[in-house]
Amino acid sequence: MLVVMRHDATAEQVESVARVIEDMGYQPRPIPGAQRTAVGVVGNDGRVDAARLGALPGVREIVHITKPYRQVSREWKSDDSVIALPGGVVIGGRDLVVIAGPCSVESKDQILEVAQAVRECGAAVLRGGAFKPRSSPYSFQGLGQAGLDLLAEAREHTGLAVITEAMDPESVSAVQECADIIQVGSRNMQNFSLLKKVGRASKPTMLKRGLAATVTEWLLSAEYLVSEGNHQVMLCERGIRGFDGTTRNLFDVTAIPATQSLSHLPVIADPSHGTGRRDLVPAMARAATAAGAHGLMIEVHPDPERARSDGDQTLSIPEFATLMQEIRAIAEALGRGIATPVRQAVG
Amino acid sequence: MLVVMRHDATAEQVESVARVIEDMGYQPRPIPGAQRTAVGVVGNDGRVDAARLGALPGVREIVHITKPYRQVSREWKSDDSVIALPGGVVIGGRDLVVIAGPCSVESKDQILEVAQAVRECGAAVLRGGAFKPRSSPYSFQGLGQAGLDLLAEAREHTGLAVITEAMDPESVSAVQECADIIQVGSRNMQNFSLLKKVGRASKPTMLKRGLAATVTEWLLSAEYLVSEGNHQVMLCERGIRGFDGTTRNLFDVTAIPATQSLSHLPVIADPSHGTGRRDLVPAMARAATAAGAHGLMIEVHPDPERARSDGDQTLSIPEFATLMQEIRAIAEALGRGIATPVRQAVG
Amino acid sequence: MLVVMRHDATAEQVESVARVIEDMGYQPRPIPGAQRTAVGVVGNDGRVDAARLGALPGVREIVHITKPYRQVSREWKSDDSVIALPGGVVIGGRDLVVIAGPCSVESKDQILEVAQAVRECGAAVLRGGAFKPRSSPYSFQGLGQAGLDLLAEAREHTGLAVITEAMDPESVSAVQECADIIQVGSRNMQNFSLLKKVGRASKPTMLKRGLAATVTEWLLSAEYLVSEGNHQVMLCERGIRGFDGTTRNLFDVTAIPATQSLSHLPVIADPSHGTGRRDLVPAMARAATAAGAHGLMIEVHPDPERARSDGDQTLSIPEFATLMQEIRAIAEALGRGIATPVRQAVG
Amino acid sequence: MLVVMRHDATAEQVESVARVIEDMGYQPRPIPGAQRTAVGVVGNDGRVDAARLGALPGVREIVHITKPYRQVSREWKSDDSVIALPGGVVIGGRDLVVIAGPCSVESKDQILEVAQAVRECGAAVLRGGAFKPRSSPYSFQGLGQAGLDLLAEAREHTGLAVITEAMDPESVSAVQECADIIQVGSRNMQNFSLLKKVGRASKPTMLKRGLAATVTEWLLSAEYLVSEGNHQVMLCERGIRGFDGTTRNLFDVTAIPATQSLSHLPVIADPSHGTGRRDLVPAMARAATAAGAHGLMIEVHPDPERARSDGDQTLSIPEFATLMQEIRAIAEALGRGIATPVRQAVG
Repeated sequence: MLVVMRHDATAEQVESVARVIEDMGYQPRPIPGAQRTAVGVVGNDGRVDAARLGALPGVREIVHITKPYRQVSREWKSDDSVIALPGGVVIGGRDLVVIAGPCSVESKDQILEVAQAVRECGAAVLRGGAFKPRSSPYSFQGLGQAGLDLLAEAREHTGLAVITEAMDPESVSAVQECADIIQVGSRNMQNFSLLKKVGRASKPTMLKRGLAATVTEWLLSAEYLVSEGNHQVMLCERGIRGFDGTTRNLFDVTAIPATQSLSHLPVIADPSHGTGRRDLVPAMARAATAAGAHGLMIEVHPDPERARSDGDQTLSIPEFATLMQEIRAIAEALGRGIATPVRQAVG
Repeated sequence: MLVVMRHDATAEQVESVARVIEDMGYQPRPIPGAQRTAVGVVGNDGRVDAARLGALPGVREIVHITKPYRQVSREWKSDDSVIALPGGVVIGGRDLVVIAGPCSVESKDQILEVAQAVRECGAAVLRGGAFKPRSSPYSFQGLGQAGLDLLAEAREHTGLAVITEAMDPESVSAVQECADIIQVGSRNMQNFSLLKKVGRASKPTMLKRGLAATVTEWLLSAEYLVSEGNHQVMLCERGIRGFDGTTRNLFDVTAIPATQSLSHLPVIADPSHGTGRRDLVPAMARAATAAGAHGLMIEVHPDPERARSDGDQTLSIPEFATLMQEIRAIAEALGRGIATPVRQAVG
Repeated sequence: MLVVMRHDATAEQVESVARVIEDMGYQPRPIPGAQRTAVGVVGNDGRVDAARLGALPGVREIVHITKPYRQVSREWKSDDSVIALPGGVVIGGRDLVVIAGPCSVESKDQILEVAQAVRECGAAVLRGGAFKPRSSPYSFQGLGQAGLDLLAEAREHTGLAVITEAMDPESVSAVQECADIIQVGSRNMQNFSLLKKVGRASKPTMLKRGLAATVTEWLLSAEYLVSEGNHQVMLCERGIRGFDGTTRNLFDVTAIPATQSLSHLPVIADPSHGTGRRDLVPAMARAATAAGAHGLMIEVHPDPERARSDGDQTLSIPEFATLMQEIRAIAEALGRGIATPVRQAVG
Repeated sequence: MLVVMRHDATAEQVESVARVIEDMGYQPRPIPGAQRTAVGVVGNDGRVDAARLGALPGVREIVHITKPYRQVSREWKSDDSVIALPGGVVIGGRDLVVIAGPCSVESKDQILEVAQAVRECGAAVLRGGAFKPRSSPYSFQGLGQAGLDLLAEAREHTGLAVITEAMDPESVSAVQECADIIQVGSRNMQNFSLLKKVGRASKPTMLKRGLAATVTEWLLSAEYLVSEGNHQVMLCERGIRGFDGTTRNLFDVTAIPATQSLSHLPVIADPSHGTGRRDLVPAMARAATAAGAHGLMIEVHPDPERARSDGDQTLSIPEFATLMQEIRAIAEALGRGIATPVRQAVG
């Protein structure tokens, strides 16, 4: 439930609404916004006395949330959520944020070379897996803590923010220590114990869509994060399961605007996993940009043929450079730009 | 099987290869192209004497087609196929062709108003259903022949080429009489009797992808058309069946570049059926453009709320006008344009 | 809309209700049944005067059909539909009907051998394709009319009823001439022109479910048949499109009882196409029997390895014999039997 | 890789093969069986010297495992795996094991009543969720440790073995302490950290198939369990994601025999989640039995309408009693029985 304030409501009136909500045994959640100010009622068990709240001074109306998810819905907050990263990059605003890097962190040389190269091409965030979820127990499982340390080093050298995945509740603290954005992977979208743990972390978080997840289920998983207190949540479409082996996954580009219409959270697109084919990544990165994604996540490697994971869907550095020009052209044609970090590299 | 000629092969040598193929009991199909000239062997039963053909003067190499479809594959013809419409519009070239109009032809006023409006916004082809395939026998089934006559009238007035659907072998002649492009609908993608009939028509044909069709099955259906002699075939991605009711269909944007990599046929995108939601059509029309579609097919109606079919996914005329500006901006950012008919309207 | 009569309503009262419906400009469709007698109103345009009908003598209540399909729904007719075949076999009753035979009719020897063998194992209907829908134009397309003639000959020899597919409106008369049951194939489930033509035939018809069809869409296609006057309709579940290549299709066994709960039409199961794998056909034929299918359709060939189509999913005659014993055991454990033709073989 | 011994190989020869494998730096895994004795090579990095092993006395042949999963494949172990539960029940043998109980443990009265009732109907294992994975953070999340204590109490009273789910690495020890079978849920099928933890537990484990998992991916997840040392693994088919909302999930009955053909692990069927509809559970429990499932898992509640979770798919006790009779009849028709615990109840 949402208590929407009148345009001319005073700060005292907002404050007083919050106090009454607390008195009733619920938690008030003030939601300032350009279009309206509101106070959300968290912990609503269906027995909130709406009439009492509706009668308070400065209150315009009481809005009942109709979606099963609540705090992540547009009903709850009509303005887009904006997430500020260290280095000055903002996700969810006018400009498109490009996240790039290898599937897995493999070595110091590898990650520094990629980081430097994607920075020069215009990426704002460096991706790289340290803990890798792999279908087979016999596949390379990532460098672990050593991978996190290399990511931190790459950030020092380039000024890029860093995103990497936490695979289980245990590794959340280590990942949170290192990363600027914690990634929750596709296979863990409904790992609710992990979601609760990450929901209590104080770091921006990217939640990838599960292979069989409806948009509603995806937003419910985001609600797990937000209901634990983590409001810096972005979503990532990365392909769902389809019936045609022509592509590895079925990249649901439509889910990008469809989700943006239902939720105020930023939506990133991952055409690398979305297609699973290097030759299709550029076309689909362009498509996601034109569809209105807030950002792109692209796998890039100095030598894709030798990547220890996901080589088939990874761009080389020159391919990524060419793609960035196309992305920029489309973004500008639609009145947008590419977000650039202001933080300076050390190296 | 394909007999690829040397760069310096003479017309006589090509002719002679064709004669030998005929002598062997197969049909020669010359395939001129910017990149290479070749002669296809149709009717290949796996017993063609490749060595004999390979030894003929002017022959560079014998290529065995590895795909189950043959004449529609890139192996068969590496250059893009280009289809010229009356009025001077070309499908499959550098410029994007926009097809627009109502789901169903409903009345003279309706179709003339839409035709005029979409022409002014920059569309090159008018769509409109006269024979309508409907899930329920109790739904509006189209105006039939009267609808075809109205389409012809709209063409007279606007100079737009016209596309409309043939639902069964019986109606092919009537549709062929009227239309500039014959549409084979999604539900009929594997109606092989219809495909054979349309394959013997001498009109450009658009084959929509079936809801459960893999790209391979789609191209095999196109092969039915081409193997009957109709080489003016374009494909249309219009959404497949998905598990998430958030959208009516699952618009498989990736299938556009994926199919272009396998086949030389032009690929059109239909975001109206692809999404089933008017609010998502613009974003997905932009996405398909950026992904490299050769054209777009958009449902437009003067009053979508009152459309007799598909109103939920139909743009109003002002919405279409806005969309065309965005499409043009994206096309130009990628070095393309919007194809315009040179034929003058009568009215 | 349905006018349900009181238990003690007289034949005159039913007659009189029908006359009033006619007077109102609609068609009355009397639906006698063990549980209730009703008169359906066909052509209902939403303006039927329910009050007038409700007030007639002998009328218990007016039922509004809530499903998009009408005459095939359980609301319209609560008793199971029963279809009697020449030879005395009944589909839709207590006993399970087994349909067996090759994918395609290939030769006289082949079809006579299979017919004799499946008859001896307990099958009641012979299947065999004369007109074959094939994904590729280069695959064997069936023997056509010659195949129909061979089927008729096999019927003469064995007394089995015969089912074969009509692929297009043109072939309906030829198929109807020969077959005891007309099959509408999966790829034609929404070939509405074909449905209308078959709906005007006076032969029992089996409608296979489309690869991407929901149960609702399947029943709407059955409604096309029934609304044209053909009430002898049975349905056939034959697998839908799935994401896992482990099996050719995804055999939706649950659709059998789910459809039976929504419709009074008999539901047959086809585990051959449902799985696409010979080694899985027996287990899934048993499963469909236990789930309550009214019949089974099984591909059997004297030499599956040499079958001209679908060999991978076809049982040999000994495999079929073993399966029939298992099917019989399960049917009997559930208080059912296997339907046997009483008509004597000629040969 | 697998070293298959000759029929007349001595224990010393097997022992000696194991020693050589160890000397080569890998782990030997002896696999005795009715059909053959073999020694698996774990840790195979593709550089094992097969010739050296093949030359050892008593060795018949060296088998290379072709599947991406290894130890769970039929290639590795051709005999069915059999899992013995306390109480004398065996999973994976001739007799069908029925697991029944409520979705969630709700109270002492509820769980004791259900346990007693399903025991009387012939179930051998009691199910009940203490830690509940729920799509929404606002849904009932289970009683936690208190739920585990109630399950233990129900076991004391009835002699039934107990299965319950572990949702995260943290809860594995608590669940392992209480349960006779640890369940890994569908949403956690690729929660690899959880799999590794459960793989180090010494309790039988049931791995549910994920909603979008292929059979290959499912078996790879089982391989995670086995490769950590837990060989008492059974699988559970519980429905995958489908496109038709007629049922909650798409119950893939064919996956039961298909998986049994690829793996030696027992396969259980869960028609409650598989269908999501109480009215369809009996038909699909019968179907799974006839398809050859090693066991069934059925949700039963004294008052399904008031269940705190999954009420729509839960049978009442009388419905379950009726179903058990049908299951028993089908099992017996196929030469099987229903497994019964020999352990006596306390109460």
